[in-house]
This record gives sequence, C-alpha cells and structure tokens, in this order.
Amino acid sequence: MTGEASSDEPSRGVLSVDAMGGDLGPEVVIAGLARAVKRTPAMRFLVHGDTAVLEPLVAKRRGLSDHVTLRHADRVVAMSDKPSQVMRTGQGTSMWSAIEAVRDGEAETVVSCGNTGALMLVSTLRLRKLPGVNRPAIAILWPSRNPAGFNVMLDVGADIKADADDLMQYALMGMSYARNGLGLERPRVGLLNVGTEENKGRAELREAHDMIEGVAEENGFDFAGFVEGGDIPGDVVDVIVTDGFTGNVALKTGEGTARFVRDMLGEAFGATLLSKAAALLAMASLKRLSKRIDPRRVNGGVFLGLNGTVVKSHGSADETGVAAAIDLAWNLSRSGFSKRLQARVAAVTAKTAPADP
Amino acid sequence: MTGEASSDEPSRGVLSVDAMGGDLGPEVVIAGLARAVKRTPAMRFLVHGDTAVLEPLVAKRRGLSDHVTLRHADRVVAMSDKPSQVMRTGQGTSMWSAIEAVRDGEAETVVSCGNTGALMLVSTLRLRKLPGVNRPAIAILWPSRNPAGFNVMLDVGADIKADADDLMQYALMGMSYARNGLGLERPRVGLLNVGTEENKGRAELREAHDMIEGVAEENGFDFAGFVEGGDIPGDVVDVIVTDGFTGNVALKTGEGTARFVRDMLGEAFGATLLSKAAALLAMASLKRLSKRIDPRRVNGGVFLGLNGTVVKSHGSADETGVAAAIDLAWNLSRSGFSKRLQARVAAVTAKTAPADP
Repeated sequence: MTGEASSDEPSRGVLSVDAMGGDLGPEVVIAGLARAVKRTPAMRFLVHGDTAVLEPLVAKRRGLSDHVTLRHADRVVAMSDKPSQVMRTGQGTSMWSAIEAVRDGEAETVVSCGNTGALMLVSTLRLRKLPGVNRPAIAILWPSRNPAGFNVMLDVGADIKADADDLMQYALMGMSYARNGLGLERPRVGLLNVGTEENKGRAELREAHDMIEGVAEENGFDFAGFVEGGDIPGDVVDVIVTDGFTGNVALKTGEGTARFVRDMLGEAFGATLLSKAAALLAMASLKRLSKRIDPRRVNGGVFLGLNGTVVKSHGSADETGVAAAIDLAWNLSRSGFSKRLQARVAAVTAKTAPADP
Repeated sequence: MTGEASSDEPSRGVLSVDAMGGDLGPEVVIAGLARAVKRTPAMRFLVHGDTAVLEPLVAKRRGLSDHVTLRHADRVVAMSDKPSQVMRTGQGTSMWSAIEAVRDGEAETVVSCGNTGALMLVSTLRLRKLPGVNRPAIAILWPSRNPAGFNVMLDVGADIKADADDLMQYALMGMSYARNGLGLERPRVGLLNVGTEENKGRAELREAHDMIEGVAEENGFDFAGFVEGGDIPGDVVDVIVTDGFTGNVALKTGEGTARFVRDMLGEAFGATLLSKAAALLAMASLKRLSKRIDPRRVNGGVFLGLNGTVVKSHGSADETGVAAAIDLAWNLSRSGFSKRLQARVAAVTAKTAPADP
C-alpha cells in the first residue's frame, strides 16, 4: 500500500524533461509538450536546456508557458559522446540537470530523447539503484495480439547479463510496469527460453523459473512459465522476462523484421499499375496497419530499478513520438509507480534474502 | 580442394529420405519427391519407411519408381517421442534407417520431416561429430535484402551454449554453407552482438571476434565484425553467427513478428469494402510478398558439423515444402558439401589447436 495514500504528492504532478540532445533538436520536444498538454491540461514540466533557445520556443506555443518552468543548462550530451565520459564530465548538461531534479525530489520521472548509454549510466549514478536491485533493466512495450495492444518486455539492453535473482526482480518490475502502465490488474508473466518444457534451457533459467513461481501468488500475478520468441508479439503473456543480451537481440530482430516486411509491402504495391491502384484504395487501412506495427508508436523505453523512473524517448522521435513518451511518463508518475515498484521490490527482497538488504 | 576431384562419387547422386514421421504423413513426402524429380531428373532416392504403405504411393506417381529404392522400416518416431528415448530404442525406425544409410556411405545427405530433437540426437550419435567440432549447429536460411534473397544464420538451437571456439567453427561452417547452398564466392560473415563496437558484449564474443578475424583471409571470406539483430534480415552480411539460445529466440521472434504483421495485414484488408476491393486488385502482388516473407519457402534447417549432412524439413511441410527441402539437399549433396566442410574445419583445427585433434 506504500505510495497509495500519498497519490497527490506534488512531485508526481511534474515531469522533468531534458529538452536537448535528441536528433531533431529542442523544437520537436517543445512541440511534443504542447501537444501532450492539450490532451492533459494538468501536466506541469520542469524543462532543462539552454533557456536562450527554449524561451522563444515555449513562448510561440499559446498557453504553454503556464505549464513550463525552465531551468538553464549550458551544455548538451551529444549522441556520439561516450557514456563513461559523460558520467565523469556531464555536470552542467541538460540531461544531468533533468536527472538531478528527480534526485532532489522535484519530480519523480525524467523524460529524455538523448544518448541512451549516457542516460542509463548517469541515471544509475545519480538516482542509485533501489535497495535490493542488483541490475536495473530497460523495459519496452511491444506491439502484440493482446487487448491492450502491447506486451512488456525487459531487459532489452541495460545489462548483458542476468542471474536468477535479477530475472526474478525483472519479473516483479515488469509486472508492476504492466499494472501501472497498461492498466492490467493481474499481469501474466513469462520467462523467455528456447522451449516451454520445465527442464529446458540454461541452469539460471530453471532456477529463475522456480523463484518467480514462488513469488507470483503473493504479488498478485500469474506466472505462465517458459515462453518462446514467438510469444513476444503474442497473447499468451503480458510480460516477457529475459536478460539484456537476448532481449536486445530480440528487439532489434523484431524491429528489423517489421521494417523488412513493410518495405517489401511497399515494393509489392509499387510493382504494377493494378497494385498501385489497389494501394490508393487501401490507403486508410494500410496506414492503420503501419501505425499498429510501428514500434515507435509507443515511444519510450523505461529504466526500472532506480530511485525514480526514467523514460527514454527515441533519439529521432518527432512531435508525436515525444508526446507519446510524455503521456507514458505522466501516467506512470501520477500512479506513483516509482514508490509502488520500490515497495514491491523491498517486500520480496526482505523475504528472499533477509540478511542482505 | 578435398572432395572436388571426386564430385561424381555415387553417394552424392542419392538422397536418403525418411518418408515417415512428418505431421502430414508419407503421402506429402512422396508427392514432394515426385515434384522435385520433375525439375531434376538425375535425382535418386533411398526412401525409408513402411514399404506396404510406400509402395502404392510411389506406384501412383508415373515414372517415380525409377528414381526410388525403398527400404523397409517397421517403426516411426512420433513428434511427441522424447529424443533421449529415441536415442536408446530408435533402431528399426525410418529415421534411424535413413541416418544409417549415410553412416554406411550409401548417401551423403539425409532428409527428414520428423521430430527435430530426435533427429539431432540420433544424427550426432550415429554420424558422429567431425574431428575438431565440439558442438554441431543448425543453420537456416532467413529472408533478407541480399540479392540471394536469404541470409544464413546459425546456430538456431542445436545447443544452448557456445564458447569462442564453437563460434569460430560456426563461422566456418556457415560460410561454407553460404558458398555451397547460396552460391556466394566470398561470403560476408558477422557475429551477433548488442552493438557493433569491438569492446561490446560478453567476453566470449570479443574472443570469438578476434579468432574469426584471424581465419577469414585464408578461408576466403570477409569478416564484418559485430552485427545486431536488425542485420539478420539485412544486406550487411550473408552469414550471422550466434549461440543456439540467442539464435533460437531470434528465429522465433522473427517468425512471430512476420506472422503478426501478416495477420494484421489480413485484418487491414478485411476492414472496409474499399480495402476488400483493393485486396482483390493487389492479390498477385500480395501473394508475391507473402511468398517472399514466408520463412517456410526455404524449407530446411541443416545440421552442420557431422560426418554427413542432415536436412530437417518442417514437420508440417506440404508437398511444396518437401520439394524445397529435397532441392536444397540435392544441391548440397552434388557440390560435395559434406567433404568440403570437413576439409575446411580440419584445416583450421590443425592450425589453431595442433595438440588436440
């Protein structure tokens, strides 16, 4: 119940936004804020970056300035900057400043379109891991056959390794995310493997299988056991748990395959006069499809396992993409997700490893 | 050059075919043989199974009996049989008999639609691993943007682990397969990782990176270094090397994503009257597309690293699928692939580990 009694803490009504560092510059970030705030007028933003650039951009959008507090940061983390370098010398960048605001309790959630590696490293350094969490994870929403339209998959690349303990924590974090981000009361969780039989796969997977099974009931989720790659866009589970190496390969394979099919589809429709005519007729349907299978529609990987929530928007996100990431961050922030996740992990950690907080 | 001087060894003109054990029964296997032999009249088959069933099926196809020698086997490996059980008690099954013919030198290549796990285990037991090969691998052809239309990926699930040595052997086996199966003179090989920088990923991957780099030139292939999941259907490399756990997850994720997109496409075209009309107009183009992205068009995983080549056709392969697997097996058999691969591995093994044959 931790966190539910205090659902109107002021920090939950504010998002900390890194306005610089995306591929398309601060214009699209500010445009994304303006679009999101039209849908949800309660939103407030603490926006970090070069105020000389940001002020006129905010002023151009009618009414937006009432929702925005600017905080000046001289420097920007570039996409090409090495994360380890940013970790040492990143103070004074808009990314650092945006994370610092969460550390200081001004907001609970950060949104950035910047350099993923740097964002992950600086977030971990400044926000610190939740007590009991060994490896934080990046969770994404994957287009699926489920009624919600998406499944949660984690880790997709925060770390290349995960032992059984880590996988159990991913299960807890993923199901908490599915509950607060997708609104699922009782998420179904699966552990990614090369077969569904219980004796399959690596030793740490069999161990994780039993550990997750052991905490499912008291944490109010269903454990479906092992699932396979084909279940990632499927409707057998809502949450897919895996290590960051496998998750990253799966994510990029899925994106690559969807892109390949879309391109082939484009070629197929361009091939003959008849098919060009058909494409015109089917335009609306094809656009709906393209939207449905576009992984960027849900724009935002979420870093889980830190003291605060970090939403990573695609570097090349346009106005629509930024607005989607803002919506996601807002929903998580308003539900008190950070505190709920913290309580969830703490409760299980206390039980499974009482000697090691 | 081993194998090239003897390219008309009699065993290369015969395929050993397990006619039983597929989901659709021996009818489709015999139909597939008839279809393949129409395209390539030089084909000869040693067909294993219940002769009382097979004889009339062969007799029904005009002229097929000239190409077929039947060999009776009483029993059939079922899809639900446990591989370890089949390994112990599988003698007398059509699968066992088909593999035994390669062991005895009557053919160099087996084709089966049966139980994958059992086929892998019995093949390894009876044909034995090539000298110097620690872990055999399953290679598949993946629809891609390359001119050949496909990339080779291995291992997709023969083993869940692979160390640096294994990955180097997969690179050799995969490039040999690309050369003989896809006709590529100088295949480009990539090692699957979560980033393309040389310092990324697990230690065994960095080690494998350097080992593969070291053998590329003398073996006549290009090593492109690390590649990512998005490159699997791409045109940056022809061969993607990975461990069997990651490869299996990637394969099933790719298949699942393609299936998901196809189903959504079907829904999109069924959604409105206008889009239904469009679908009719675009029928031919859509069929071409569906064929292009259907992983089953190239029907056949190939087990590499044994004394003999084993082509695993999909359990649910229809007549077209079986014929595709037969064509693949025939091309590999005629090119003397088994012997070439053996020579390739032996040469590298002798250099990199002279004390351990």
